[in-house]
Amino acid sequence: MKKKNNKVNAAILIIGNEILSGRTEDKNIAFIANWLNSKCGISVNEVRVIPDIEKVIVKNIIDMSKKFNYVFTTGGIGPTHDDITAQSISRAFKVKYEYHKEAFEILENYYGKKKFNDGRKKMAKMPKGSKLIYNPSSAAPGFISKNVLSLPGVPSILSSMIENCKKYLIKGAKTHSKTLNLYTVESNISKQMGVIQKQYKKFVDIGSYPFFRLGKIGVSIVCRSTSLIKLKKVNQDLIKMVKSKKIEILKI
Amino acid sequence: MKKKNNKVNAAILIIGNEILSGRTEDKNIAFIANWLNSKCGISVNEVRVIPDIEKVIVKNIIDMSKKFNYVFTTGGIGPTHDDITAQSISRAFKVKYEYHKEAFEILENYYGKKKFNDGRKKMAKMPKGSKLIYNPSSAAPGFISKNVLSLPGVPSILSSMIENCKKYLIKGAKTHSKTLNLYTVESNISKQMGVIQKQYKKFVDIGSYPFFRLGKIGVSIVCRSTSLIKLKKVNQDLIKMVKSKKIEILKI
Repeated sequence: MKKKNNKVNAAILIIGNEILSGRTEDKNIAFIANWLNSKCGISVNEVRVIPDIEKVIVKNIIDMSKKFNYVFTTGGIGPTHDDITAQSISRAFKVKYEYHKEAFEILENYYGKKKFNDGRKKMAKMPKGSKLIYNPSSAAPGFISKNVLSLPGVPSILSSMIENCKKYLIKGAKTHSKTLNLYTVESNISKQMGVIQKQYKKFVDIGSYPFFRLGKIGVSIVCRSTSLIKLKKVNQDLIKMVKSKKIEILKI
Repeated sequence: MKKKNNKVNAAILIIGNEILSGRTEDKNIAFIANWLNSKCGISVNEVRVIPDIEKVIVKNIIDMSKKFNYVFTTGGIGPTHDDITAQSISRAFKVKYEYHKEAFEILENYYGKKKFNDGRKKMAKMPKGSKLIYNPSSAAPGFISKNVLSLPGVPSILSSMIENCKKYLIKGAKTHSKTLNLYTVESNISKQMGVIQKQYKKFVDIGSYPFFRLGKIGVSIVCRSTSLIKLKKVNQDLIKMVKSKKIEILKI
């Protein structure tokens, strides 16, 4: 399905006590956001990180699935007691939490009948009507239920599955970006940058981010837009502005 | 202020298009969560990442400041047009957005009167009644307004300021953790782990996280509790269980 030149958005719901406790540093937000934008033209408009508590998951699924075109969940689809994403989504959507026939077969085939224990069987239980997101790494599939796509939390497994989400997504207009790296401080250009942002208000987002390189302070100005023409224009204006202030532009 | 043996919670609100676009990988969630837990006995119960849009920031500040004991915001307190955290919090709390006298003096002193331009002055504007969170790295202070603490997005600056938040926080009971690293797969112990979790339901959270080391698959079982005695007991039960299954326990 394609709907070019339309804005399509998504949210990410990270389900996991290990991220909230600080034990694990999240790697999935940036990966999913980059993939969605570059491969599908979908922007991530919000991310939430929540604990492994059913009523909290249910509330967030109900809320976010209404608010965004797609919701990507990560984590909580393994075999253990703290893996409660599938049952929580079932409750949120008021559908049965039951074995998915194909998922059951995939897992039974992967582990062999004798080793297909209860924990492993649990990974075949999903909200009724789910479609599978195949998993080339470790067999246990993710799933899409309504507009919610559920992926595992382990980054290497998640990234191996992400391409299999594509067929379920309507594509939007890709957001392009251009970055100007300058040896200056933000406050030296903030006024002029604000004026330029106002001119392109509806078409281009201008962000400014300080960096430190070789002991020097710099600023990256990042412009993002679905229009390449507008992006080129705003970039020209910015270059003109920084040149008039004799600010050094870095080549990389 | 100390309120030992009480549960105190917090939420983190990451304000920044650069995290949502995937351009920048967040480093602040894990840092703040670890610091809050280890130094203040405060658990992070939710994290949200939202764009630099005033009405979105306002809504989230209103919502989260009611729901949690503290809200930590990161990002959006610099000198540029996309730095709108302070004005948004002012709007959320219906207080004036105005120059903070001491912040103004700190910044004027740091930059010198001649170089204290409008962009830099902007960093002294805060919600009326804010108290300062001093910044030893780059002078521009963070601030606390009601129960919302605002810090910058640059991780090195944020981490240099975090200790200065301490005096504004009521301390809670510290959550301790114990980790068992095993060479097994989750599904091999999921049933028994679930039984043990049920026994300690109210006192200990047991999480299980797969890992890969030297080509072998393993599982970390992480137990978290404010009670060291309960933590020791659950750990003993888990060790007994894994030994009965002849599972190898890693020393590190």
